[in-house]
Amino acid sequence: MVSTRNPLNIGAAARAMANFGFARLRVVSPYDVAFREARSAVGAAPLLQKAEDYATLASSIADCRLVVGTTSIGHRGLQHPMRRLEYGARLIKRALAKAPVALLFGSEKFGLSNEDLSHCHWLMRIPTVDADLSMNLGQAVALCLYELARDPKAVKAKPGKIARAAAAEAEQITALLMDVLRQSGYVNPTTAASTEEKVRRLVRRLDIAARDAPVLLGMLRQILWKVSG
Amino acid sequence: MVSTRNPLNIGAAARAMANFGFARLRVVSPYDVAFREARSAVGAAPLLQKAEDYATLASSIADCRLVVGTTSIGHRGLQHPMRRLEYGARLIKRALAKAPVALLFGSEKFGLSNEDLSHCHWLMRIPTVDADLSMNLGQAVALCLYELARDPKAVKAKPGKIARAAAAEAEQITALLMDVLRQSGYVNPTTAASTEEKVRRLVRRLDIAARDAPVLLGMLRQILWKVSG
Repeated sequence: MVSTRNPLNIGAAARAMANFGFARLRVVSPYDVAFREARSAVGAAPLLQKAEDYATLASSIADCRLVVGTTSIGHRGLQHPMRRLEYGARLIKRALAKAPVALLFGSEKFGLSNEDLSHCHWLMRIPTVDADLSMNLGQAVALCLYELARDPKAVKAKPGKIARAAAAEAEQITALLMDVLRQSGYVNPTTAASTEEKVRRLVRRLDIAARDAPVLLGMLRQILWKVSG
Repeated sequence: MVSTRNPLNIGAAARAMANFGFARLRVVSPYDVAFREARSAVGAAPLLQKAEDYATLASSIADCRLVVGTTSIGHRGLQHPMRRLEYGARLIKRALAKAPVALLFGSEKFGLSNEDLSHCHWLMRIPTVDADLSMNLGQAVALCLYELARDPKAVKAKPGKIARAAAAEAEQITALLMDVLRQSGYVNPTTAASTEEKVRRLVRRLDIAARDAPVLLGMLRQILWKVSG
């Protein structure tokens, strides 16, 4: 983070790093008061306390093999390859497997300066809809780290399905509901057979979870007791 | 947003919505002072000014066909299907194509209550590494909206490549560099041929961009002028 002014943003960045498993926060010429405030805040993350403080950008990235600047759409005219977050994060992940990568964030107000950007191999932008509306710094950091930690396989990996009630349970529910409806005067005796079929189909459409079946049966038994009384 | 306390978080949520093209912010029993502060802040987004204020969660989601609660990993024990953001967002996108969807965020301190959660069809969690470290509310909103707006195709859609210098330009650079090296006394005449090959390979590995070729040629010409003087 280069020339960050607001301690809340440094804190938010540290929190997002902890959320997504990133460890090394480096700050370059932070607004001193802000940095000290953030670092000494009650409950400041260990990550923030361990943040390294550098006087120059060059010294902060010295050990990195890839340096990526983040920027809003507005910087498009700059003489740097510009990559969307989705694609850029993929390149960064690949590079991270081999050597340290620096991901630079500029100040809240001005972003990275042209001098800062000249240290970068390429730039990355978050695909927002409105070019003129910049992102909140803490949110921008969170998005970049999320995309880096994101698991593409999780898009398709359905979580374990909730177990459905067995047919026997669905039929028990159907039978009890029919009893209740009969006792309540809902069923016309001349169309009872077709009503039962309708009820059976309706109960199947409800797609009852296994763990809900006993609850529903309990409710229906209680209602049946009441309407039969 | 249900029972939000901090005006900065309501503001951050509104900003993220604007960033990713979402329009309808609804707040349920917000901490009144906070909400009024956020709404009347200098430069408050139009989106925030149009935010609708509801007394109950049920009334705020009345027109929605799908209601999804966001929660930290900690809630895993709850009797709700829990989906990771990557997968959940895919389901929400599909549902959004047909009808309004509500995405619920709870208070900073306690998240959504069990009563809030009972209005949800399923829950979504952001895949953070540490179950005990909750996310910052504004960042959580930004991540969910980013994932909803995210373009999976962009992962592979390489941006236009920077044009490489033509072979003729690379060879011009090689020749000039050799001249400079000869004039500087770098080249041992007995191994000049092999040095030239080395230099040629080195220049090719530099993978010079078309627009950088004239700049490099200009530099080399100037150096050659100086070292030949």
